[in-house]
Amino acid sequence: MKKYAIIVAGGSGTRMGSPIPKQYLEIGGKPVLMHTLEKFFLTDSSINLILVIPETDFDFWHSLCQKHDFHLPHLLTKGGKSRFQSVRNGLARILDHDGLVAIHDGVRPFVNTEVILNSFQTAQDQGSAIAVVALKDSIRKLTDDGKSFFQERQYFRLVQTPQTFQVSKIKKAFEATELHHFTDDATVYEHQGWQVSLIAGNTENIKITTPEDMEYAEFILGKKTS
Amino acid sequence: MKKYAIIVAGGSGTRMGSPIPKQYLEIGGKPVLMHTLEKFFLTDSSINLILVIPETDFDFWHSLCQKHDFHLPHLLTKGGKSRFQSVRNGLARILDHDGLVAIHDGVRPFVNTEVILNSFQTAQDQGSAIAVVALKDSIRKLTDDGKSFFQERQYFRLVQTPQTFQVSKIKKAFEATELHHFTDDATVYEHQGWQVSLIAGNTENIKITTPEDMEYAEFILGKKTS
Repeated sequence: MKKYAIIVAGGSGTRMGSPIPKQYLEIGGKPVLMHTLEKFFLTDSSINLILVIPETDFDFWHSLCQKHDFHLPHLLTKGGKSRFQSVRNGLARILDHDGLVAIHDGVRPFVNTEVILNSFQTAQDQGSAIAVVALKDSIRKLTDDGKSFFQERQYFRLVQTPQTFQVSKIKKAFEATELHHFTDDATVYEHQGWQVSLIAGNTENIKITTPEDMEYAEFILGKKTS
Repeated sequence: MKKYAIIVAGGSGTRMGSPIPKQYLEIGGKPVLMHTLEKFFLTDSSINLILVIPETDFDFWHSLCQKHDFHLPHLLTKGGKSRFQSVRNGLARILDHDGLVAIHDGVRPFVNTEVILNSFQTAQDQGSAIAVVALKDSIRKLTDDGKSFFQERQYFRLVQTPQTFQVSKIKKAFEATELHHFTDDATVYEHQGWQVSLIAGNTENIKITTPEDMEYAEFILGKKTS
């Protein structure tokens, strides 16, 4: 069965306090996005990579690829105004209906091989596979009137990517009109009335969004190469 | 108003895969617990430190203090069979009823000064102050029948310590019979029918529970001294 990975990096990274969107910032001497693409390629070189970035960044990306001698084959695709639209653009590049597709945040370079493989296997067997991790801290829920209540943390999971699906089902799900609560691909899938399957993610698989995250990313890379 | 800090380290740290409980492991050449005690002392040297550890560790702790030339004044107190009992033992060492007490995990050495000061101020004004941070990832809730549902993450907060209270109120709260859902001090306080006040914690303030956390701790320390 054909495998695809849509690497989504449509954001402008304004939270980084940097004029360069976070997905292009270097860790270990290489843009974050290249680490992410490589992780999928090195896990299984038969995965077809689809990279979604703003169309205005295409030239910049080409220059980065040249600078870093980056030659992994990938289909460059223009992002939309929202994550939903970016993913939909990525899905439109997949022409067959029988494959599996992992949808993954471009700024999560530390997903591990085991999680990627497990996500494809589980999606093949069950239709979907959403990477999640347990909470290490207690959790409270806020109410609209300013109060807060204890929650049993064992009932909660933090949601990561990849979120992997059978192509036919996720394509159908993305035909829906975009809704406010579509914060990830799982919610779009569920909107069809389908349940998602959860798989264990890896805790290192953080979403790089702040300068502190960049420092942590350098730390993780340093561990792996030392 | 007198200030106290109960530093709770009753655990045996079995998750670390080390025979030495995690609170005694060294980061930056010094046991985790000493970093934590120092953070409170350096924030405000008038804070009375109460350290709760298993009674069987007292000799070991004294030897560590000697080895590391550690002379911060602190009241050594024996832990109980549960966190609740350990905190109650700590509270029993506070004889006046007018002060404020911060209850803090021994294995959270990276709480910052601002959070500590804010927790005492807020507890003085409002009775309690619980340090919490927002979620960076999406969150799902599991159901008993194996399903899971999307949750609006802006309604959730991850709970840290310090959890700071007016001494009179938290002493009264800890007179209760221990219940299963007393996972932290906030839940004990709430059992009296009182609402807790939340304050912003700092994201670095992790609870060191795994070998990976120890590596991250070394990384944070390295940042601060470089």
